[in-house]
Amino acid sequence: MNIDALSTPCVLIDADKMKANIQRAQDYADTYGFTLRPHIKTHKIPAFAYLQIEAGARGITCQKLGEAEVMADAGLDDILISYNIIGFDKLSRLAALARKIKLTVAADSRFTVDGYNAVAETTGATFDVLIECDTGGGRCGVQTPDEAVTLAAALRGGARFAGLMTYPATGKTEEMSEWLRAAIAAFDKAGVTVETVSAGGTPDMWKAHTVACLTEYRPGTYIYMDRSQVAAGSAMMQDCALTVLTTVVSKPRPDRAIIDAGTKVLTSDILGMDGFGHIPSCPQAHVSGLSEEHGILRAESGLPEIGDRVQIVPNHACVVSNMFDTVYLVSGGHVLDALPVAARGKVV
Amino acid sequence: MNIDALSTPCVLIDADKMKANIQRAQDYADTYGFTLRPHIKTHKIPAFAYLQIEAGARGITCQKLGEAEVMADAGLDDILISYNIIGFDKLSRLAALARKIKLTVAADSRFTVDGYNAVAETTGATFDVLIECDTGGGRCGVQTPDEAVTLAAALRGGARFAGLMTYPATGKTEEMSEWLRAAIAAFDKAGVTVETVSAGGTPDMWKAHTVACLTEYRPGTYIYMDRSQVAAGSAMMQDCALTVLTTVVSKPRPDRAIIDAGTKVLTSDILGMDGFGHIPSCPQAHVSGLSEEHGILRAESGLPEIGDRVQIVPNHACVVSNMFDTVYLVSGGHVLDALPVAARGKVV
Repeated sequence: MNIDALSTPCVLIDADKMKANIQRAQDYADTYGFTLRPHIKTHKIPAFAYLQIEAGARGITCQKLGEAEVMADAGLDDILISYNIIGFDKLSRLAALARKIKLTVAADSRFTVDGYNAVAETTGATFDVLIECDTGGGRCGVQTPDEAVTLAAALRGGARFAGLMTYPATGKTEEMSEWLRAAIAAFDKAGVTVETVSAGGTPDMWKAHTVACLTEYRPGTYIYMDRSQVAAGSAMMQDCALTVLTTVVSKPRPDRAIIDAGTKVLTSDILGMDGFGHIPSCPQAHVSGLSEEHGILRAESGLPEIGDRVQIVPNHACVVSNMFDTVYLVSGGHVLDALPVAARGKVV
Repeated sequence: MNIDALSTPCVLIDADKMKANIQRAQDYADTYGFTLRPHIKTHKIPAFAYLQIEAGARGITCQKLGEAEVMADAGLDDILISYNIIGFDKLSRLAALARKIKLTVAADSRFTVDGYNAVAETTGATFDVLIECDTGGGRCGVQTPDEAVTLAAALRGGARFAGLMTYPATGKTEEMSEWLRAAIAAFDKAGVTVETVSAGGTPDMWKAHTVACLTEYRPGTYIYMDRSQVAAGSAMMQDCALTVLTTVVSKPRPDRAIIDAGTKVLTSDILGMDGFGHIPSCPQAHVSGLSEEHGILRAESGLPEIGDRVQIVPNHACVVSNMFDTVYLVSGGHVLDALPVAARGKVV
């Protein structure tokens, strides 16, 4: 089937570009001797996680338990949930998952560690724990290396300390590197081995080799790439594997065309850029505004006509794929497969 | 069941506030003698559409065919799709829907009208068409009253001209009023009756009675209300029926707490405001940033602790309910029902 037969708006995944993106990152990791543990929040599709594993990735990363459950049900057996798992309901699910697969979770507080110790003790579950460190990202994470050592020492029994993780600030690779070096020194001093040192983020992934202590990297967006990654310099526009196929539904004036994709497709993620996407076939078109089901294209001339179809490279691929139940795997304008986005909406 | 038993993040709909919002709008419309045709893009739940109909609404509005199909399957039998329906695939679905219910669609171009004429002729389907007018909103719509008259005259057979519709710019009720008055004069001059004059948008809904020619209003957000409506002055914070229940998962510093809801729950919709939501139980907390699965709360002091649950009034209710397969109907902290968001993701 040709993509012209698809109803719009829909998400197309260029199989060739995606595979090239996977291989490029794996080659880079192999060259510099660190492990790749791709974050599946970007695609949420077990078949694509398997492509990453087959290329050489060691396990996958998920952000939420619900994502990990979907992946484990599909047979993925080595999963890091890079998140504090809080509450009885979720700790019970954690225990069930830990009986099924090799599970690693994150902790940045005594509250979280106490929960992990309790569930390990009461259920007999065993799992690894990475202490999350705030190396400049300003989100989760212990604030000092000493806090990391103290927290690691509080883990008991089946909740086993396995190392450190961070989600660094973009453009601050050096600060992260210094922070982690100090942390490893503090653990050395305490006589504790740090097996894993894990960082993530596609924008700075090609600098990962400059951080000597890293053992693992968790890129997510790299499988699809997107307009924000092109802006960050981590990809070229022709690397972008995910596009949104849309139809022009109105052209009220020569300088304004309206497409059938709005925030319920492209989302409002702007990520510091101007506009809501890039149209390779009509680069002068500025995707100037979105409402829920309309997108506004502006250009002095050359805008597509009503009924024309345009492919848009979105600002942020990870949130766009999460808006769809199904994405279409394509190659050279032909549809190869329709794949359910199995972990879409699994925010719990 | 108490809401404390729900896993977070999840969406709560306060049944009492929702019903009051529905009734308040219906009373207003009844007082001034115009019809209410609520836009279901906000809730996407047939049971809530029925509440709106039972209160006195005449039919409902949908933005996409997929939403209308879900509502028609649930028995809603008078639907306006306020959108240009383009393409053979969608016109076939339009014809099927028109055989089942009283259907009205929008058109703002000869391209769209030609499609409607063709599908009416070839399938025998009959449906109403409103000419969409750009009265200042700068999205879809014919640019002049004369264009509206010309387009209406091009409709044939089962594709019946029924009136005008507009989605006006917020805060520009007077411009809309002037535009529509001129359009009605142009139709009068052409000897054509304009049965329906339909406008929409919750921010300006309480000014609808000042537009003498309006026969119908299509508010969407009014059923839930949200932080942007409070900012626009169309609701008070205590009217907001939709909240997101979240858990604090990390508190790296006294002035920063992290919740388990990010852009995949609250979305990046900012709508001209500062921050991503309001927390009634902790109004000093600034929801300062979101990543995909984390929300950052900031305040000098008084932030909730790890494990605490907080309810957030989002910036934009319509996009948040679209992120969930299920929402919880609640009253006084008790869960009354778990309702599937049946038309979630129906963007095609």
